[in-house]
Amino acid sequence: MASFREERDTFGPINVPSDKLWGAQTQRSLQNFDIGGERERMPEPIIRAFGVLKKCAAKVNMEYGLDQSIGKAIMQAAQEVAEGKLNDHFPLVVWQTGSGTQSNMNANEVISNRAAEIMGHKRGEKSVHPNDHVNKSQSSNDTFPTVMHIAAAMEINSRLIPELKNLHSALHSKSVEFKDIVKIGRTHTQDATPLTLGQEFSGYATQASSSSTAALFFSFFLHKSLIFLAQGGTAVGTGLNTKKGFDVKIAATVAEETKLPFVTAENKFEALAAHDAFVETSGALNTIAASLMKIANDIRFLGSGPRCGLGELILPENEPGSSIMPGKVNPTQCEALTMVCAQVMGNHVAITVGGSNGHFELNVFKPLMASALLHSIRLVSDASASFVKNCVKGIQANKDRISKLLHESLMLVTSMNPKIGYDNAAAVAKKAHKEGSSLKEAALNLGMLTEEEFESLVVPEKMIAPSD
Amino acid sequence: MASFREERDTFGPINVPSDKLWGAQTQRSLQNFDIGGERERMPEPIIRAFGVLKKCAAKVNMEYGLDQSIGKAIMQAAQEVAEGKLNDHFPLVVWQTGSGTQSNMNANEVISNRAAEIMGHKRGEKSVHPNDHVNKSQSSNDTFPTVMHIAAAMEINSRLIPELKNLHSALHSKSVEFKDIVKIGRTHTQDATPLTLGQEFSGYATQASSSSTAALFFSFFLHKSLIFLAQGGTAVGTGLNTKKGFDVKIAATVAEETKLPFVTAENKFEALAAHDAFVETSGALNTIAASLMKIANDIRFLGSGPRCGLGELILPENEPGSSIMPGKVNPTQCEALTMVCAQVMGNHVAITVGGSNGHFELNVFKPLMASALLHSIRLVSDASASFVKNCVKGIQANKDRISKLLHESLMLVTSMNPKIGYDNAAAVAKKAHKEGSSLKEAALNLGMLTEEEFESLVVPEKMIAPSD
Amino acid sequence: MASFREERDTFGPINVPSDKLWGAQTQRSLQNFDIGGERERMPEPIIRAFGVLKKCAAKVNMEYGLDQSIGKAIMQAAQEVAEGKLNDHFPLVVWQTGSGTQSNMNANEVISNRAAEIMGHKRGEKSVHPNDHVNKSQSSNDTFPTVMHIAAAMEINSRLIPELKNLHSALHSKSVEFKDIVKIGRTHTQDATPLTLGQEFSGYATQASSSSTAALFFSFFLHKSLIFLAQGGTAVGTGLNTKKGFDVKIAATVAEETKLPFVTAENKFEALAAHDAFVETSGALNTIAASLMKIANDIRFLGSGPRCGLGELILPENEPGSSIMPGKVNPTQCEALTMVCAQVMGNHVAITVGGSNGHFELNVFKPLMASALLHSIRLVSDASASFVKNCVKGIQANKDRISKLLHESLMLVTSMNPKIGYDNAAAVAKKAHKEGSSLKEAALNLGMLTEEEFESLVVPEKMIAPSD
Amino acid sequence: MASFREERDTFGPINVPSDKLWGAQTQRSLQNFDIGGERERMPEPIIRAFGVLKKCAAKVNMEYGLDQSIGKAIMQAAQEVAEGKLNDHFPLVVWQTGSGTQSNMNANEVISNRAAEIMGHKRGEKSVHPNDHVNKSQSSNDTFPTVMHIAAAMEINSRLIPELKNLHSALHSKSVEFKDIVKIGRTHTQDATPLTLGQEFSGYATQASSSSTAALFFSFFLHKSLIFLAQGGTAVGTGLNTKKGFDVKIAATVAEETKLPFVTAENKFEALAAHDAFVETSGALNTIAASLMKIANDIRFLGSGPRCGLGELILPENEPGSSIMPGKVNPTQCEALTMVCAQVMGNHVAITVGGSNGHFELNVFKPLMASALLHSIRLVSDASASFVKNCVKGIQANKDRISKLLHESLMLVTSMNPKIGYDNAAAVAKKAHKEGSSLKEAALNLGMLTEEEFESLVVPEKMIAPSD
Repeated sequence: MASFREERDTFGPINVPSDKLWGAQTQRSLQNFDIGGERERMPEPIIRAFGVLKKCAAKVNMEYGLDQSIGKAIMQAAQEVAEGKLNDHFPLVVWQTGSGTQSNMNANEVISNRAAEIMGHKRGEKSVHPNDHVNKSQSSNDTFPTVMHIAAAMEINSRLIPELKNLHSALHSKSVEFKDIVKIGRTHTQDATPLTLGQEFSGYATQASSSSTAALFFSFFLHKSLIFLAQGGTAVGTGLNTKKGFDVKIAATVAEETKLPFVTAENKFEALAAHDAFVETSGALNTIAASLMKIANDIRFLGSGPRCGLGELILPENEPGSSIMPGKVNPTQCEALTMVCAQVMGNHVAITVGGSNGHFELNVFKPLMASALLHSIRLVSDASASFVKNCVKGIQANKDRISKLLHESLMLVTSMNPKIGYDNAAAVAKKAHKEGSSLKEAALNLGMLTEEEFESLVVPEKMIAPSD
Repeated sequence: MASFREERDTFGPINVPSDKLWGAQTQRSLQNFDIGGERERMPEPIIRAFGVLKKCAAKVNMEYGLDQSIGKAIMQAAQEVAEGKLNDHFPLVVWQTGSGTQSNMNANEVISNRAAEIMGHKRGEKSVHPNDHVNKSQSSNDTFPTVMHIAAAMEINSRLIPELKNLHSALHSKSVEFKDIVKIGRTHTQDATPLTLGQEFSGYATQASSSSTAALFFSFFLHKSLIFLAQGGTAVGTGLNTKKGFDVKIAATVAEETKLPFVTAENKFEALAAHDAFVETSGALNTIAASLMKIANDIRFLGSGPRCGLGELILPENEPGSSIMPGKVNPTQCEALTMVCAQVMGNHVAITVGGSNGHFELNVFKPLMASALLHSIRLVSDASASFVKNCVKGIQANKDRISKLLHESLMLVTSMNPKIGYDNAAAVAKKAHKEGSSLKEAALNLGMLTEEEFESLVVPEKMIAPSD
Repeated sequence: MASFREERDTFGPINVPSDKLWGAQTQRSLQNFDIGGERERMPEPIIRAFGVLKKCAAKVNMEYGLDQSIGKAIMQAAQEVAEGKLNDHFPLVVWQTGSGTQSNMNANEVISNRAAEIMGHKRGEKSVHPNDHVNKSQSSNDTFPTVMHIAAAMEINSRLIPELKNLHSALHSKSVEFKDIVKIGRTHTQDATPLTLGQEFSGYATQASSSSTAALFFSFFLHKSLIFLAQGGTAVGTGLNTKKGFDVKIAATVAEETKLPFVTAENKFEALAAHDAFVETSGALNTIAASLMKIANDIRFLGSGPRCGLGELILPENEPGSSIMPGKVNPTQCEALTMVCAQVMGNHVAITVGGSNGHFELNVFKPLMASALLHSIRLVSDASASFVKNCVKGIQANKDRISKLLHESLMLVTSMNPKIGYDNAAAVAKKAHKEGSSLKEAALNLGMLTEEEFESLVVPEKMIAPSD
Repeated sequence: MASFREERDTFGPINVPSDKLWGAQTQRSLQNFDIGGERERMPEPIIRAFGVLKKCAAKVNMEYGLDQSIGKAIMQAAQEVAEGKLNDHFPLVVWQTGSGTQSNMNANEVISNRAAEIMGHKRGEKSVHPNDHVNKSQSSNDTFPTVMHIAAAMEINSRLIPELKNLHSALHSKSVEFKDIVKIGRTHTQDATPLTLGQEFSGYATQASSSSTAALFFSFFLHKSLIFLAQGGTAVGTGLNTKKGFDVKIAATVAEETKLPFVTAENKFEALAAHDAFVETSGALNTIAASLMKIANDIRFLGSGPRCGLGELILPENEPGSSIMPGKVNPTQCEALTMVCAQVMGNHVAITVGGSNGHFELNVFKPLMASALLHSIRLVSDASASFVKNCVKGIQANKDRISKLLHESLMLVTSMNPKIGYDNAAAVAKKAHKEGSSLKEAALNLGMLTEEEFESLVVPEKMIAPSD
């Protein structure tokens, strides 16, 4: 049988499951926002960031007079939250109050009850008070945007940038591996002049480049916008109920704790009322998504076949494709990745809509923006990792097929121009196209060239760079 | 200590947790698609719809010669899936192969192992075979689009339409309740001519109308597009490896099982290769989202205050807003609802991108499209229910404030025109505006009207309809 | 030298070019909204719809007492606007007041000046008054949503539906023409079991079907939402300053004038404050865009080559592709169409954002919504027409290539199962895949089948439908 | 009567209007892509950028052996294109081949015919050849992405950045002007603790800040991505048919001509096949749009009234709002700006879809991406300029109203806490709320404070910053 204890807030008493650390306001939110079920819980990086922030706040508050034993207990409890040990005590969903107030109170309640236990008191007695102690000098209006930035920056730093670098590195390696394989180019999806498979992959590597797209790009956001913390703005940005310097100290403490270069936001009014930094960062993820979709699409088309597609690449076979038909390797990693890209593009629109709809001193689409951005970061990171490990690294060039297509192509005709002239070269190509023959056959049949002349003239390897 | 059993597929043996019913292909997918974690599991309505479909398939296959005892065991096992009893055995995430093949195999494996147990055999022995028995006459390429339609139609029918009807009904009730309360109108956010609060809510009710937006709208999709099932198309739409009539029979069986009017798709090629029905349905949800955002925005602005906003509505107080300041009721339900609307708009873009990127005989953005649409349906349904219960039903008109604003307004000056002429009326308004006085004071001071004349002329109640 | 005349409004006098019919408010808007230049002018269908509406309003106003000679002059002038003869007198851009007030005044001013000329008076003298006569019983707030509906309905009816029907018809014809050409199917972009090229095109035809997507779809919107006219709601929806019955009469008059089934909106509050009908209709266009992008993508990939692509279709050559390389036909019509689809998806988001941001009694994103929807309608209509004329009609099947690919495919191996068993069939396929040989060669080399047996067993034509 | 001359390309002869400089391929495109009408012509910045590029190409080609007299004539003709003098000779629409080939040929044809005239020859005689001379060492596939970057960079540099700086400057000035006006804050649209109007505007100024959002932001793109020119990649990125060093020289020449820091793209394969730089830049514009929508929304709500809204700001009156009602100033500039923001968000989705759909060596959504991005840049630039000039600069604070609301507010009650304690303060607030009285009246009636004590305690000016 479930057992309950009584917790209370200014609305009065309410029953809370005995085995849970949360309090009255969390319980009330659970009942008032029955939207979407467990899947829609506030993302874990937000919960962890609350742990980081509340720990730092206690530390700074101790400098401003918070009782040391209470402060230390809060720090210990908050550390447990930061490590994900108390995740089960954060049941609230994203779809709550738009300031994230209820998740801030959830953190305050869990940490105060846990700190009380650490100090030898009972849950629910408020010997450590969620508002007066844990939330001291803070407001939901400045804590939630602060944890949004902490969570996003940590996820980008520890998850996204490394995976994008790996992706770049894997594509670059393939570019080197394939540098001498000359193949037909394709523009408008039609046959075009040749290039090397390495050159083709160098385009992908450039798209995923750690020096341009990934690291530099996100470091731009890390250093120019995500780095700024709202903490210290309290209810409307003025910093009412904090002491001078509190904002600078707490940002420095968070920076120290996370090893990320956080500083206090220069303008707290903007930091509460707008989340342009999130719209920007989501825009960067949207660019990554567009970029990865192009790469994954190319790879699946170049790997199409085994007999009736382009067939230039052999993709690793990770699971049964067709039990009877060897060589039918479904490009499932490309499929997972492109689906992720579509979701990231969608989340970007959600974030843009949320970001544009703030009013006055507070944007109240915060949990949505946090949830959608963290969703995108996680999906791109994981899908990139899976794509690298289960697809890119194992890609092989189907050299026979590549060579066959290259030499069947009519595009090589242009290399005969200098010797036999444009009109004769065109005649050769037309004959070959009409008869379905090779350029060589057509050229020899028309008596334009000897076999030796053909072989010395028609050299795709000479067509892959500017001339001297 | 965790225990494992060996399962196998055409790739060979692989270890599977002993307490799980899934088999080799599910296990392989788990390892190859480590993307997003547990939150990203295939949505439950898809799992349940697989239960429905596999039950119906067994029933029809028995007509075509499937062993009766095996068929019955499959039906029983599939029924358990349909009832959500085996959810824990469906661990795969959305971000897998784009045809949903691995979730189809997950269903086949779980049902075959469970059916084997029902028949007294062991898991993993394939006495009931996932492919030969459970997936008989089927292909992932037709089962997955079929469960997409079943799941979406069931969720719309059982969840979305009832909640949208409730929303309409609640708004309509308020429209009736408020029918005699005359208030100032606002256009361009500026004061305008009066209307009743009931008329204002009648606009919202019309937006949410069960006769237009909700029921009729979705019934359009239910009857014109979602109703069509791909089942019977098998791998590319031709129906290879099925018997004539199989498609019609299975659709009829699903219709009977679900009490929804499913029929077989007239063109199976389209049913596998494109999901316009999902893009359409998502478009309808996008309209609902735009509509609800307008309604929720209005309600929060009309309820703004308590002193320094518009203050015409009193919203129910569901949780502590400010402990010290009575009357500060944060419009948290409006906030949750508008955040949901933003996510639905985003999901719509994801679905559109997925829907536009199919190639040849198969669209491979299926799990994404299913996940995003079901997400939107669930969020709109739940958020509407919460909005009705925790906000709309408890809205009260602040009659004193409404009346005060109405009578302070300068817009009523137009009703003096017939008596004192346009120029004099304008002079009254200008004086009132300049001096910050009421129209009545200005008119009396200028000697334009007696108090009696003013009272009989300036009657907002006469300004809310066309004249006879 | 440019010459000017003086016009005036309540703000005072202002100079207007003598050769233009517009008045003071138009001139003021020109100066206050210098955004985007001439390309951004209010779309012509809106101008024409103003002509229709103002003509009908004059007709109905004559029944309610408007001077007959003035009324007739207005009708004549408005008819000229409806016919596009006075387009040069509508210089205002989309990016103006969000109610479209200034374009309504532009119409009132042009029609009043033109009507005055018709009656033998001078421009600028207001012998026919823009407000008192042309705009009688109207407000910008009800005229602009009314012309939005008239313009969209007329464009859909006269332009979009016919072109979508043509597209369906052209695709259906190809489906019939290609009904006997068996080809390889492709799923996951990989080789799959065969189907006919006619079946493949039947999928496209179904997507574009006049009975589902196009006519029926838009008729849903025409009859359920776009049909409703806001006219008669005046400033806030109450109909203040109109007579009872005015709304019904004017809708009937517009219906008669346009031969479209317009009726008065049941709820005028919703008709001014929200434009869900536009969001819905744009959602339908978004579905069409997703659908057409799939079709156009398939056609360009199936037509890729001439040597190194899939090469199953021969697309018409409308312009020089490569001067020297015969057979390089760039799929330029597919490219134009898919670019249009991308813009339509974008416009849909713009319309959704606009539709969700209305406040109180008036949505003030009207010109944007009108412009974006009419843009989408025009682009889809024209691009479909161009695609049909310059691409679809001229598509030819490359039968030799189709047959070659089909018979090279390993997918046909499944048809040997009944004769030699699954394991032997798999061995044949593996040998063929390994050696790059045909199935026939492999089967004969392994001694599994005689040539006669092979020919009688491996018949793709038997693989394109369910069995009896 | 219209007169024509004959022009020819590899397709044969075709009639072209005598008074136009374009040639056969332009004429053919006009007939093959009848999509959207004149409004849809390729944007002027693209045409001008073609002028810049072709001038620079001639200059560099002269170094590589192009006949000097022909080269100089091309440079002169191209300069005329760059100055917009030949705009009427560029009739092609955006919706053409996806590589922009036809617009490149349009430029080649116009410049060759004009150069021929300059040299004393006739149009159509090809004495200056569009391909051999004007397009020498170039391909549509590298010229079009090059002009995309030139056009976007020039528009951003000369139009967008200056206007965004002006916007920041105007908002910052207001922030200073309003620095001493204390007002009520609003969170969740509800009354909150006070701040100054200057602080509120400082948030807007920060959003529009030249040091963060605008200049720095775009300089990021100018220096990191838009700066790279594809020229020299020719057909597939290899640079076939150019000389070594051509790419570097042409980028340097364009840099010199435009005074912008262009350099040659390090990887030409990426530069032709993907346009991530455009998706990124559009993402930045999307952020600006979300940001401006927030600012414009706040301003219209703060300016709502004159009697029944918030009424804290007095917006400039630029056109007649209501003829009879003084003070009804519609926030039309806010409306125009927010409509622009919605379109920019939509264009961003179009650009994202286009950017994600490139295939192999060439993205063929180029004209769409160019058109949509340039549209967004122009709209944001012009709408910001209009907003600054016609709205921001003229905004006045309604000090009486601001003061009245502030002092009516119950939020000031918190300042009594230190003196009378939390419970007594709450009792005061409750009494005031219940009776609709002021805090002062309630406090005095309850005997909690003397009037003097109240005045010394309740000082909003002390509530707008952290304490010492």
